[in-house]
Amino acid sequence: MLNRRRSAELLPLVFFSLSVLLCGAEVPATALIPLSITQTLVVSEGAKMMYKPVPFSLVEFDDNFWAPRLRRNREWSIPHVYWQLKEHGQLEAFRHKTDPTKKTHIFWDSDLAKWMEGVSYCLMQQRDSELEATMDEIVSWMADAQLEDGYLNSHFIAAGVENRWKNLRVEHELYCAGHLIEAAVAYYEATGKKRFLDIICRYVDHIDATFGSDKRRGYPGHEEIELALVKLYRVTGEQKYLHLSQFFLEERGQQPHYYNQEALERGEDEQTANSRTHEELQAHKPIREQTEVAGHAVRAMYLYSAMADVAMEMGDDELFHVCEQLWENLTTKYLYITAGIGSTSRHEGFTVPYDLPNENAYSETCASLGLVFWNHRMLQRDCDSRYADLMEQALYNSALSGVSLGGRLFFYTNPLASRGDRSRQPWFGCSCCPTNIVRFIASVGQYFYSHNADQIAVHLYANGTASIPMGSQTVQLTQQTKYPWDGKVTLTLGLDAPAEFTLKLRIPGWCKKASLRTAGKTISIQDCLQKGYVCMTRQWNNGDKVILNLSMPAERVYARPGVADNIGRVALRRGPVVYCLEGVDNEVPLERVFLPDKAKLSAQYRDYLLYGTGTIVATALCADDSDWNDDLYRTKPVELKPIKITAIPYCFWNNRGSGEMSVWIKNR
Amino acid sequence: MLNRRRSAELLPLVFFSLSVLLCGAEVPATALIPLSITQTLVVSEGAKMMYKPVPFSLVEFDDNFWAPRLRRNREWSIPHVYWQLKEHGQLEAFRHKTDPTKKTHIFWDSDLAKWMEGVSYCLMQQRDSELEATMDEIVSWMADAQLEDGYLNSHFIAAGVENRWKNLRVEHELYCAGHLIEAAVAYYEATGKKRFLDIICRYVDHIDATFGSDKRRGYPGHEEIELALVKLYRVTGEQKYLHLSQFFLEERGQQPHYYNQEALERGEDEQTANSRTHEELQAHKPIREQTEVAGHAVRAMYLYSAMADVAMEMGDDELFHVCEQLWENLTTKYLYITAGIGSTSRHEGFTVPYDLPNENAYSETCASLGLVFWNHRMLQRDCDSRYADLMEQALYNSALSGVSLGGRLFFYTNPLASRGDRSRQPWFGCSCCPTNIVRFIASVGQYFYSHNADQIAVHLYANGTASIPMGSQTVQLTQQTKYPWDGKVTLTLGLDAPAEFTLKLRIPGWCKKASLRTAGKTISIQDCLQKGYVCMTRQWNNGDKVILNLSMPAERVYARPGVADNIGRVALRRGPVVYCLEGVDNEVPLERVFLPDKAKLSAQYRDYLLYGTGTIVATALCADDSDWNDDLYRTKPVELKPIKITAIPYCFWNNRGSGEMSVWIKNR
Repeated sequence: MLNRRRSAELLPLVFFSLSVLLCGAEVPATALIPLSITQTLVVSEGAKMMYKPVPFSLVEFDDNFWAPRLRRNREWSIPHVYWQLKEHGQLEAFRHKTDPTKKTHIFWDSDLAKWMEGVSYCLMQQRDSELEATMDEIVSWMADAQLEDGYLNSHFIAAGVENRWKNLRVEHELYCAGHLIEAAVAYYEATGKKRFLDIICRYVDHIDATFGSDKRRGYPGHEEIELALVKLYRVTGEQKYLHLSQFFLEERGQQPHYYNQEALERGEDEQTANSRTHEELQAHKPIREQTEVAGHAVRAMYLYSAMADVAMEMGDDELFHVCEQLWENLTTKYLYITAGIGSTSRHEGFTVPYDLPNENAYSETCASLGLVFWNHRMLQRDCDSRYADLMEQALYNSALSGVSLGGRLFFYTNPLASRGDRSRQPWFGCSCCPTNIVRFIASVGQYFYSHNADQIAVHLYANGTASIPMGSQTVQLTQQTKYPWDGKVTLTLGLDAPAEFTLKLRIPGWCKKASLRTAGKTISIQDCLQKGYVCMTRQWNNGDKVILNLSMPAERVYARPGVADNIGRVALRRGPVVYCLEGVDNEVPLERVFLPDKAKLSAQYRDYLLYGTGTIVATALCADDSDWNDDLYRTKPVELKPIKITAIPYCFWNNRGSGEMSVWIKNR
Repeated sequence: MLNRRRSAELLPLVFFSLSVLLCGAEVPATALIPLSITQTLVVSEGAKMMYKPVPFSLVEFDDNFWAPRLRRNREWSIPHVYWQLKEHGQLEAFRHKTDPTKKTHIFWDSDLAKWMEGVSYCLMQQRDSELEATMDEIVSWMADAQLEDGYLNSHFIAAGVENRWKNLRVEHELYCAGHLIEAAVAYYEATGKKRFLDIICRYVDHIDATFGSDKRRGYPGHEEIELALVKLYRVTGEQKYLHLSQFFLEERGQQPHYYNQEALERGEDEQTANSRTHEELQAHKPIREQTEVAGHAVRAMYLYSAMADVAMEMGDDELFHVCEQLWENLTTKYLYITAGIGSTSRHEGFTVPYDLPNENAYSETCASLGLVFWNHRMLQRDCDSRYADLMEQALYNSALSGVSLGGRLFFYTNPLASRGDRSRQPWFGCSCCPTNIVRFIASVGQYFYSHNADQIAVHLYANGTASIPMGSQTVQLTQQTKYPWDGKVTLTLGLDAPAEFTLKLRIPGWCKKASLRTAGKTISIQDCLQKGYVCMTRQWNNGDKVILNLSMPAERVYARPGVADNIGRVALRRGPVVYCLEGVDNEVPLERVFLPDKAKLSAQYRDYLLYGTGTIVATALCADDSDWNDDLYRTKPVELKPIKITAIPYCFWNNRGSGEMSVWIKNR
């Protein structure tokens, strides 16, 4: 349960330097830059309604789903990734800048930065002087490594700074810079310490002096800095950072093509220069002409996130509409049922519509996290529940599948079927996913609520409490629920004084039947539904309760026949959670299982399985070979015998050793 | 129809120098070594009944299946392969032995030799002075290239003869030698010209002087020479060749392991030497301990062929029993329904039981040809129809699939499903299959009949005539049939005089109902069935007819559930021919097709499709998406709508451009 006393202390200043204040007494007020949290509430012509996420530092979980995840992340994943970064070199890459025996890599700074961002998020919830000392030491290495002109990339400082900015298409400099920005912003917000942010601002000022419409017209091969610059703009209030982000976005894919030009400048021939891989980097055409998703999935998500950010900051409806078209294209053509995206390992990205193989799915963890980032941004514009639906779908499935329940093993790719040859790993040669999921889990609370001047929107459900600024007070919003194992949610409002505002509750897209009661009365959901949210505008009193009942039967999902792998197959879903069969729970090879369309599905919660989890059990049929002699083939049909099957949440698979797994079960 | 007059001329000497006599008048009798055709009829204690194949030169086809194939092979494939060999270097590899600018490859001699063997087989049926001039020129290059001590390998003569015999495991010298032997034997049998055979005998004598139990104890990494040496023994009568074959076989897999020893001799370290790849070469244990198929499929087939040869030549029942165990293991665990074998590209071979993926099937053409070679040998021992069944299954499916109807495009691998990204190629970097299939098709007639002193066995059915030695005369055995499109076969005996012998007709394993009539009377098949052949012993008169009616309905075949890819799927077969769906004949993506277990299958012959072919048509169901909106997923089941499907013989697929193909259809 939330520490109500602590939260209460924050109320008067909650719209100003919210998270900075959380860091406690040791930060001198003069070190603070005024945070521009309210800036995003500026309403443009085209974007009348805008929302602001409730920061995760104000959201507490008291459930058996998220709370243990956050604890594991803080206690196991953060230290685990620290030791991995130390062992592999990233941690001290800035320190060893002058040691030629130490190798570096073009993407190392991003690994380190994502971990630092994750650490910062943990510090926001609980300060830790030892951890801060480690962070401060890394920051001091950065300060030492930073060049006179502000440049700061450990690889190019070590490998030869004369090669900097020569190959934006491939060499990840701006990508790394973006992650450093995110980390610096987070550390500043967590601790109020300004040194990291100052270093990074110097670096960004150098970047700003290098790139622009009247300077070098380059932009990153791996998008990331665009969304980071918006964060930096919001925390510093410096318009130039927003404009630099806008420049990088708008310059993308313009002619003459920058990547061709820089290749020619490097002395490469025309053929190399006229790369056919521009589409893989979403650089095949200007962003406003990109209405179909393409290329590397993570890059696409980071690009679209920045586009949504800038569209909303600028009130640019045209740009937001491009995002909507991309969203429509992605969700109708390229989305796994787990919300995994990017089906091929070839370029870690999108291929052609409906190409969604199960066993060979790429579905990178980072891409699913990126999908959450993007949809979370889209959602803030007008609280359209389809973005929250997709965010929830990713959260409970392909994103969470990326990390083990123990917190120290990670999936880079998230296939929807396995013959038993796949398992999570402690680290990877290119280890973007572990560091990404560490910062993601630490900040997962931010996806649950939004608010604006007179509205509170509840996007996601979990047992726990949030402290949400509303007018002159803070509303304590408590959820009592067993979600995602049950669809009943009781919301209780804690108020210092009665207040009028709108409470918006999301009716999930997966839910076919919902009911709502408050003050002893049933409310017609249909009558007050706006873009998938029930909206209750009234004067609320302390202790008011709202009971939302989301019917959550175990159900079958079918894929459209264009998805070749899933023809004749069915998936199981309950609420937002996609289930799978895992070998360890089932007696026969999974490919032998047929689930009859009429077989009853029973949802059962099991306390002692996987630290407590929902399951779906059913009587299915099994292709039986007990009546076969040695023959490989025969003309008599294969007999099907009844068998009990147990399905567990997809995100929990591979936590009991490697074995068979399948999301899509043959149906009959 | 057979030229009865020509055949009749051969009768008196047919058991002596049979094929030599066929070559005509230009061969001086003194040039001939007496052929040892009758030698294999020596009956050992353990192998009471032995049979001899009727040479393909005595088998004529007059049908629309095999006759056009043989014509295409002679008129298109032989020249096509000639030009490919010339363009890629194999043809003149022996000529350019001293030219260091010409590259060579360790397996080139085998490519050339297989083509020369194929040419020889064509010459057996029809002499051609131009083709012979080409052959003779190549032989003269070989003569020039041959070293003083008899050594003859174009790669090592060019690359440095000091490296010869240093890496038997990898470097294919004995494999190439084997194919040169087969070619030399064939050319001698076709033309009576002895020069090629003499050259090769000198080479083999060198090999015999190099390897043996008291010499170098090596044996080939790629088996082939073992079966070739038996052929050489049979044509020359030289026992030492048989014994050398026996040595290579028995030495295989013995300890201390030769491949480890030769690696150490090359200065490689112990780890490299103790290769874990011995199993890939069937060298993991002595051959008599090998009861489970393993490793590279082509090598395995060539090994097992030689084992069967030597077992029968030596009356070695124990060795033959090993072959039987291998056969049992292969057919119950590793066999595609098309008789393709070797499922993985990793080592072009066998993996684990029931691992028979469809789309990624390796199923090399050469492996299926090897399967025919092996089963043909096994069949000669006691005329057990299961070997003929498998031979026929390979012949009509995975073997023939290796070459296009046009004769100039080849499959190296023969998958059982394709998304449209596969097509036959004119040549390959490692081009074993095109040359192998050329020699195979040219000699396919040899698989149809066997005989011994008082028996004629008919293994396969096709419209045409064979001239089969029986006692003092030649029996003209004419088949009238539309096989494989119809199961009725009328056999007519042409005799100079009445004769008593046993006529054996195979009742194929696929046939569930057969009837037999002769002289107006129905014969009970059950009463005279021996190992799958009906045996009719009587005095036969000129013009006697036997009418065999093999019921040949289109039928469904199911795979045992251990074969994961085929669970919930069905294949179509009619007679020996496996059918497949090809995109071009069907309106919907093949993965959308479900064939209900009760849908009627109709066999239809179509004159104008693929030069005339049987088809199977049925009303199936199609996963329909016309009632879907844009959604990728929904909870309402997919609707199935009736659709007409047409299946064609698998071996004919990919003759109308590349497109989808599937042998295993979803069933319902």
